[in-house]
Parts: sequence; C-alpha cells; structure tokens
Amino acid sequence: MVEIEVNDLVEIKKNGRIYRGIVMPHHAFSSKNIILIKLENGYNIGIDKRNVKIKLIKKGRKHKKLEKEIPYDEKKPTIALIGTGGTIASYVDYETGAVHPATTSQELVSAVPEIFELCNVEAKVLLQKLSENIVPKDWVKMARKAAKELNKGKAGIVISHGTDTMAYSGAALAFMLKNLRGPVVFVGSQRSSDRPSSDAFDNLAAGVKVALSDIGEVVVVMHAGISSGKCLIHRATKVRKMHSSRRDAFVSINDEPIGVVEDGVKFLSGYRKKSDGKTIAKTKLNENVALIYYYPGMKNDDFERFADGKDGIVIAGTGLGHVGEGLIKSIRKLIRNGVPVVMTTQCLNGTVNMNIYSTGRKLIKAGVVDGKDMLPEVALVKLMWVLANEDNVEKAMQRNIAGEIKERRLITPISPPENK
Amino acid sequence: MVEIEVNDLVEIKKNGRIYRGIVMPHHAFSSKNIILIKLENGYNIGIDKRNVKIKLIKKGRKHKKLEKEIPYDEKKPTIALIGTGGTIASYVDYETGAVHPATTSQELVSAVPEIFELCNVEAKVLLQKLSENIVPKDWVKMARKAAKELNKGKAGIVISHGTDTMAYSGAALAFMLKNLRGPVVFVGSQRSSDRPSSDAFDNLAAGVKVALSDIGEVVVVMHAGISSGKCLIHRATKVRKMHSSRRDAFVSINDEPIGVVEDGVKFLSGYRKKSDGKTIAKTKLNENVALIYYYPGMKNDDFERFADGKDGIVIAGTGLGHVGEGLIKSIRKLIRNGVPVVMTTQCLNGTVNMNIYSTGRKLIKAGVVDGKDMLPEVALVKLMWVLANEDNVEKAMQRNIAGEIKERRLITPISPPENK
Repeated sequence: MVEIEVNDLVEIKKNGRIYRGIVMPHHAFSSKNIILIKLENGYNIGIDKRNVKIKLIKKGRKHKKLEKEIPYDEKKPTIALIGTGGTIASYVDYETGAVHPATTSQELVSAVPEIFELCNVEAKVLLQKLSENIVPKDWVKMARKAAKELNKGKAGIVISHGTDTMAYSGAALAFMLKNLRGPVVFVGSQRSSDRPSSDAFDNLAAGVKVALSDIGEVVVVMHAGISSGKCLIHRATKVRKMHSSRRDAFVSINDEPIGVVEDGVKFLSGYRKKSDGKTIAKTKLNENVALIYYYPGMKNDDFERFADGKDGIVIAGTGLGHVGEGLIKSIRKLIRNGVPVVMTTQCLNGTVNMNIYSTGRKLIKAGVVDGKDMLPEVALVKLMWVLANEDNVEKAMQRNIAGEIKERRLITPISPPENK
Repeated sequence: MVEIEVNDLVEIKKNGRIYRGIVMPHHAFSSKNIILIKLENGYNIGIDKRNVKIKLIKKGRKHKKLEKEIPYDEKKPTIALIGTGGTIASYVDYETGAVHPATTSQELVSAVPEIFELCNVEAKVLLQKLSENIVPKDWVKMARKAAKELNKGKAGIVISHGTDTMAYSGAALAFMLKNLRGPVVFVGSQRSSDRPSSDAFDNLAAGVKVALSDIGEVVVVMHAGISSGKCLIHRATKVRKMHSSRRDAFVSINDEPIGVVEDGVKFLSGYRKKSDGKTIAKTKLNENVALIYYYPGMKNDDFERFADGKDGIVIAGTGLGHVGEGLIKSIRKLIRNGVPVVMTTQCLNGTVNMNIYSTGRKLIKAGVVDGKDMLPEVALVKLMWVLANEDNVEKAMQRNIAGEIKERRLITPISPPENK
C-alpha cells in the first residue's frame, strides 16, 4: 500500500461519493482522524478517514516542514496564543498553491514574522471547535486559561476564535475576568488564509500588538475596512458581527472602538488600564436563560412555552423596548414567579427607554428590567453571569460591569406622540 | 361643574397619582375615552377618563380649530392617506406651544401645505394602534384597503404607521399586493411633531411625493440623515429599523434604497413600475410560524419546545447560516415531519451560504431552506404568506417574490479554512 503524503493528488471514496484533491498538511486544530484535501474548485474539506477508500492519483512534491529557528528572546515580553478552533495563521506554499496551516509557533513565524520581532509567543491549543459549536462551558475554559497565563507572567493573551460566536465568547470573558493583568484579545478571520484577500494575517498581527498594550479589558481585534490592513479594537461587550462574510464584519455598537491598529496601536477612546494584582476568573454561569425575539403575531402561548422553566429571560423587543400589549400578562406572571425579564431592542442601535410610550410604562410596571443600550446577545450572556454571581439580579443587570452599558441619555426627553 | 376644554391647565387624579398639564385637542386616532395632556416636563400622555378626578387649575386660551378651506381640485390626482395609529401630522400652536394633531385633511394643510399644491388627499382612519400591537390580521386590513383605494382610482396610497413594526407591515403588504396600480408608501415619525427636530412633516411630505410617482411597489419613506430634510425610499422587503430613537433609523439592508426625496423624487436604482390592471390583494396568511434566534447554549429542548406545533420555522443563525451542531437532530426531525425550516443570518448584512462550512452542509442535508439575503423578519412574514398561498413552500421561499431576495453571489467562492 502506497503511503499517502501531503501534496499528493488523491481520490477519496466515502459513502458513495468521490472527492478528488490535493492532500494538505495537518493543522494544530484538526483531528488526527481527518484527512484534509483541497478540492479542484478551491475549497478545502476535511473527511473522516474511517470507512474511506483513498486512491493515489499522482505523487506530489515532497512537503517540507518549515524549520526556521525562533530564538527565545528573554528581553522580549511573552504572549499566550490560545487556539479554540480558529485558524491561527497559515502560510501559502506558492509553488503548489496549497495552504499550510501553522501548527506550531515555529511555523507561525513564516506567516507573520513581524510578531517575533515584538515578542515571544507560546501557542496552546485549548479547543478544536467551529465557533457555532462553542457552548458556555467553553467560555469557562477560555477564561480560566487566560487568567492562568496572565498570572504566570504573560504580557497578554490572544485567543483565536471562529467569527460566528466570537462576540458572545468575548462578552462572556469580559464578565468573568476581573482585575486583568493584561489584555485579552480575540482575533478571527472571515476569509481563509489561502485567499489573497485573507484577513487572518492582519488580524493576528494587530491582535498581538494589542496584547502587548496596557489595556486591562477583553477586546476583539478585526479588520476595519475592506481594502486596507487597518484593524479596529472593539470592546468585547459592545461588538457584533454585522456581516456574514465581509472582512469588516465586526462593528462597535452604541460605543466607539477603543482604538485602531495600523503600524502601531492608536487609542481613540478611554479604556481600563491593566492591573498589577492577580487576575481572577469568576466563571460561574447559569445557562438556564433564553433570548426571545419579539415579532408581530407572537402569541402568549409561544412566549410562555419558550420561557417555561427558565431562570431568566432577555427579550429583543421593538423600538424603545416594546412587545405587543397582549404579552404583558405572560411577562407579569413570570416576574411574579421570580424570573427576571430584561428588555433590549432589536434595533441594536440606541437605548431602551420604556418611559416614553404606554406599552413601555406597562412593562416597567410589570417589573421588566431596563436593558439600556446593551446588545440583546450581551444582555443574555450577562444574565447567565449575573444569575450565578450577584444577589440583586435586577440591579446588577442595570449596572455597568464590563463596558456593556454606555448610556448617553438624551438631555431633552423625546416627547411622545399619543400614538405612534 | 366647569367644562374642561383644550388649552386648560388641569390636575388629574388617577389611581392615587396626580398628573398636571395642559389639555390637548383630540386626535383622529385617539380614543374618545382618553384625555390628552401635555405634562410640564414636555411629555404628552393620554389618561383614561374613567375613574379620574379632573381639577381645573387655570382656564386656557380658547382653542380655535383651523378652518382653512381646502378646495378640491379635479385637475390634481388624489391620494389616500390611511391612518393605522401613527401621527399623520400635527401643527404647533406657537402661542401656547401645544401640539394640535391634525384630525382631518383640512387641518393637515396647516401642517404640510405643500401637499395640497400637489394633490387632493382623502384621509381615512383604519386602525388606532401603537405599532407594537399590530398583528398579522391588521396587515390584511391594510392590504385590502390599499387595493380598494387604488382600484377606485387613487394615484397612490400613504399609510402612516408607528415605526416599531412598520417594516414588518411593509413586507407583509409587499407579499400580499399584486399588480400594483400605484405606489403604497409607509411613513412614520421617530420624533413627536411638537419637537423642532420632528421628522413627521418631512416624512409625510416626502411620502406623498413618492405616492404620486410611477412606482408599483410597497416602500417605506423615512428620514435619510439627522440634519437635513432628505428622505430615502426603501423597498419594504429590504428595510429595517436600526435605531431605537434616531430619525435616520430606517436602513436598506442588502440593497440600495430605490431613491431619495429632497425637492423632488430622484431614483437611485431600478424598481417595478406601476401597472394598468386591477390590483389584487392576496391576503391569506398562516400565522402559525416562529422566528428562533440562535445563541450559544440553546438546547435541543429549547428549540423543540418553541418549534412544537408550528407550520414553519425561520432561524436567525450565526454567520453564513449556522447553529450549534447538536440542534441539527431536532431540525431534521421537524423537517421530516413536513415543517419547513428556513435559515437566515443574525448578522443581517450579507447572505446565507450553507455550502462553505461543514455545519452548513449538514443543515442543507437535513433539508434546511436557504434564506439567502433575506432579513430574518422578512423571511418570517414571507413564510406566513407562502404557507397560505404557494404549493411548493421550499421553492417559493427561495424565489424572489417582492424584492426580498437580491443575491449577488460571490464569483470566487470563499475558500473555507478547515476550522474557523
């Protein structure tokens, strides 16, 4: 039997389908049971090796691992690079066109050599997950790992993460990590690193620079525009993925970005400085919550079924924080049973204000908690954390804990029309 | 007993609370049981007259109704102005500062006199609802009324509507109304008309101009920016309220606005022209659907309870259209039971593409319908309509019916990293 090696052209038969492509090198985060191939249409896929037939079509050029030596420089700070399933970085072999995902910090130098001029990097693989599969328990692992590395003397933490739920994870760590000794920086990539338009390198390089700064917050560093290499530093509790594919998908909502990274890091607004003490990870969570998105036609029964048995509810209401009046009965019942209900707005931008219209006033009277200018998703993550860590849930939800509330209430009240 | 009149300063005692303010004139859309007062803090509130004690504090200046004659001009086209609970228009009495909501087309001339230079207006009150209380049955009423008025020879229809759910109603009418003989234009107001910053007048005037144009589509006409009087014409199936209070809250997503209204109407992109035939209102709906917003930590049980018994489901998934892999089991079960499940993206911008990552491919295999670049809310409204009017639901959901799908698929496929 011929041994199949990286760069070989193969045909793989699995469940009656045939896949033809070039075998690609393994990845720090790909399971050993998976064979990665680059299809002729340019897509990379991973196929479970069990129950497959692999046929060698053409032997490929011998794949050489990069062996460039990275001297550890004790005069430079060291950061921890924590992989959760995101592509940390890859380098393209221009002879074959194949992507070589960097599996070690040694290989990383080839992708983004400027990083090693700035610092030493210790890369660790914590999880191997597509980000839509990240669950709250994974946030706990990330927070503990980040705190541990900071307390061991790392200057900062870079967490590479899939972009789908990166903002949820970022918000979770922002609530969990107290007294940060250094920056915790989430980076991701909207485009695979084998495309010329990939943002992986820019985001990683910018993320490392931010991890070496004096920020004592959890942030997301991602591309600012679609044409330049400029990246923005977003507060993790104020950022949202606002495009399914563009590189500039991440946008700060109801807040300015903390800063911008071009050649260096430039700050645009205030931020919390890093602390000298020990970083604490308060990782207790109550996952038994739900986010309910209101829409016309939602019935009391819909609301009640979804809310049933939960310890807390976040509503993404309309406008200034409304739902159809008929639902208020169900909401009141929940609150009387001790379940906090937090109102946010599906407009995403702007703040909740339940004082303006009669529906809002009825919601306040029923005991609904004002979610202020929190994003619905951030309010959900906060509610998980607050339920497990605070005695007065209602008060804590309305208090700024990690930059998630940044109210600039209008000085002039918005005068209500009697009807809208 | 002293008779309480408009402009009087009063104190109203209700349920132990005292409200002090100036009595305001009634409104075409305010219930006769409600007394409207302008509080000293500038807010207007409506108080149910039953079980109240009203004390006259100071007699006000005699309120005079505007009696300006509006000559019907048979050489001008006539539009129908349909009120659903939105403030059609109001005029400010500069001597008292009080708002006088226009209750007749006669009063309207005072608010936006330029309208009557352009056309005759027949104002009709169809509903008196805050827009968060609008339900699908109200969409049916609006569609029938619009079709009837167009078929009776109106040049166009302006529907004044609260902003909270205006985009949902607009989308519903876009699916229901076929062969439009004239424009159907939704207008609203983010700021009460007694504030100098009110957008009510601009939006109404611009809406009327659009109603006199040759568009054969349902559109939303709202303020373009926060400083000028410029308004944008948004396709009703592509617009979303993206701010809880700003005047420029309405934004076209995944599409260009159809046009802009400054002095006149200027078109920016293609649109369907009005038709000569009869306008048909296909108003059947199946309301038994749900929109489920995915978040990390959502359990199969959550999903199944919410989806239970529904005839169709729209998911607002992450990124290119994903959910945690664990949920796919529950989704597959639903689809096998004949319930269509449509995937949209909570990013709002960009298109669903379930071909890129393994999770997406599993969702396609389970039979999930590609929601393409439809907004989650629009997909929900469309699903209500399609379930009641089309035989092949899956096909119809992926076919552009009313401008809701405007795909520009990338020519180069986005190459997937093996992990994100």
